[in-house]
Amino acid sequence: MKPLSRYLALSGLCALALTAHAQQWEPLPEHPPIPADNPQSQAKIDLGKTLFFDPRLSEHGTLSCNSCHNVMAGGDDNRPNSIGMHDARGGRSAPTVWNAAYQSVQFWDGRAGTLEEQAKGPITNPIEMGMSDAAVAVGRLNQIPAYLPLFKAAFPAASKPITMDNVAKAIAAYERTLVTPDSPYDRYVKGDKTALTAQQARGMKTFGDLGCTACHAGANFSGPPMPMAQGFFMKFPTFAGSAFDKQYDLLSDTGRHASTGKDSDKHMWRVPTLRNIALTAPYMHNGKVPTLEEAVRVMAKTQLNRDIDATQLADVVAFLTSLSGKFPEQTMPRLPLTSGNSIVPPIDPHLKTAKATD
Amino acid sequence: MKPLSRYLALSGLCALALTAHAQQWEPLPEHPPIPADNPQSQAKIDLGKTLFFDPRLSEHGTLSCNSCHNVMAGGDDNRPNSIGMHDARGGRSAPTVWNAAYQSVQFWDGRAGTLEEQAKGPITNPIEMGMSDAAVAVGRLNQIPAYLPLFKAAFPAASKPITMDNVAKAIAAYERTLVTPDSPYDRYVKGDKTALTAQQARGMKTFGDLGCTACHAGANFSGPPMPMAQGFFMKFPTFAGSAFDKQYDLLSDTGRHASTGKDSDKHMWRVPTLRNIALTAPYMHNGKVPTLEEAVRVMAKTQLNRDIDATQLADVVAFLTSLSGKFPEQTMPRLPLTSGNSIVPPIDPHLKTAKATD
Repeated sequence: MKPLSRYLALSGLCALALTAHAQQWEPLPEHPPIPADNPQSQAKIDLGKTLFFDPRLSEHGTLSCNSCHNVMAGGDDNRPNSIGMHDARGGRSAPTVWNAAYQSVQFWDGRAGTLEEQAKGPITNPIEMGMSDAAVAVGRLNQIPAYLPLFKAAFPAASKPITMDNVAKAIAAYERTLVTPDSPYDRYVKGDKTALTAQQARGMKTFGDLGCTACHAGANFSGPPMPMAQGFFMKFPTFAGSAFDKQYDLLSDTGRHASTGKDSDKHMWRVPTLRNIALTAPYMHNGKVPTLEEAVRVMAKTQLNRDIDATQLADVVAFLTSLSGKFPEQTMPRLPLTSGNSIVPPIDPHLKTAKATD
Repeated sequence: MKPLSRYLALSGLCALALTAHAQQWEPLPEHPPIPADNPQSQAKIDLGKTLFFDPRLSEHGTLSCNSCHNVMAGGDDNRPNSIGMHDARGGRSAPTVWNAAYQSVQFWDGRAGTLEEQAKGPITNPIEMGMSDAAVAVGRLNQIPAYLPLFKAAFPAASKPITMDNVAKAIAAYERTLVTPDSPYDRYVKGDKTALTAQQARGMKTFGDLGCTACHAGANFSGPPMPMAQGFFMKFPTFAGSAFDKQYDLLSDTGRHASTGKDSDKHMWRVPTLRNIALTAPYMHNGKVPTLEEAVRVMAKTQLNRDIDATQLADVVAFLTSLSGKFPEQTMPRLPLTSGNSIVPPIDPHLKTAKATD
């Protein structure tokens, strides 16, 4: 499907959602979809967790996936944007890794169709983890002999298991365990009418009545509940021209257009999940909106052309806090270590040396 | 005790150690010493672990204690030196946090007498976590309401429990759980004569015969087994003048002298533990010695004035790998999060903004 026709089809879905939102409240499914070409196994999940936490996958050995997608927190870094190698930062805010497995497509602009494809991005991005290419990343892992048995256990059929594809598959398998069920909202829609406060229940109705569910639909609040291999994109701001455009710099980043170059993709963005949204401030693709209250005001104005009143705002924010789920207890991985020999390059010509302190 | 008399007293201890090393092989005690003014409690340990992993204790919200003292690895960052705020790096290599509770004093130069005192250092060090002062760090924690009940549980008698002293006490309490017992060496000295390979057992004897145990004595291989509140310091290089001085820049950092300003402290350093030494490359205070083999050669020459042969070297290195212990399984902490409002300052004037990527 071409982007334009896809957009029209999705607009149709939005209209459907707008009329049918009352029936749409769904709890989070116990497990996200598992792709046929990357089945889950405990060995693969364990390897993926280890890789996710291993800073040696970055040029300086200082940043792991978890540095910016902190699973001990809301799955992001609570910063406007992340800080990568050489003190660089990107223009977009790190999205949460929690429940990312329920998203249709990955990255703010949806340029990765799968978690597997996404996982490769930051490792070799010069302003994120900064490995110059996949071969360098794989070479780094090959310098750690204790990784080989972990890859063999995770990919028993592979003759040469340490590859960038398998790194990505293992990380994706781990990410598919990062789900937060059993939020007050989930308990409420499963029948426990005491799970939401009166204000949260009011906010839930307001959230539907305003039309927020047109896009933030489905169990993950990130799109209609259907196979979404093509991704669910919306224009942001849909109603351009409000004072927010300038206040929060909403137009300088053209979103999906920046990666496809297509005019029809200008300011098109993947609809992000709202699960745990209270835990992932600051907001929007550029992280320039500091609070959840302000984020709701911005979205109401830019997407629905509504100036919502103080009661609506407080109620919707209260509802959104009910989307914070239960984070599963996790054990820390043990990183496989080389014996007696550091694999991180000792020379960092980009860095200045300051006074000794440790 | 003044530094000079302390040094003389310790030299006496060294002589004692040199003559008595055959009796000195000891396993790691089950628990490190616990100071009377900071008794352990589960609530305090849990809080300490949470703080240890919380990057919001750094200026940009990007670095936690664990960033440089990675407990999922060897308790350090396997880098020559760490990278702090604003891309700065210090001149010294991050010491391991594992078994630090058995060290007499903290930091390479021993300028902190306790883990509590040490814990405060990096948080407000401008080239490490970069909080401008303790009040700013405490203020940051006060912006996270969910921290208050954790501090109250850990410090039930305190009327105002969120203080820098209590932050340090909690972190120290957690660090006193970071012990790695049951290494092959420990099993061997407890009576399991199969726990070491023949080469490792040979290396153990060589290690003692060469005189390494004069300083790397006791259960933690960091000093004589006795109350060491004053710290156990040695001159490095003791035998200055070898080619290693220049090759590895061993003289430009004057060690304890750099913090005390006293001539008698020139090139005096705390004797660091050798436990898990195979996992914490690169080596020495400046991290300039890349491998364990080379570190042993350097120490034999600079401290014992010995050019050891290839067999001795291989045997001692084999023995040192037997000091890698069992790392306890740990659960990840859940960081208390603010609801809907980021507490990390949104403006980082020091940073350049690069192209969007997330």
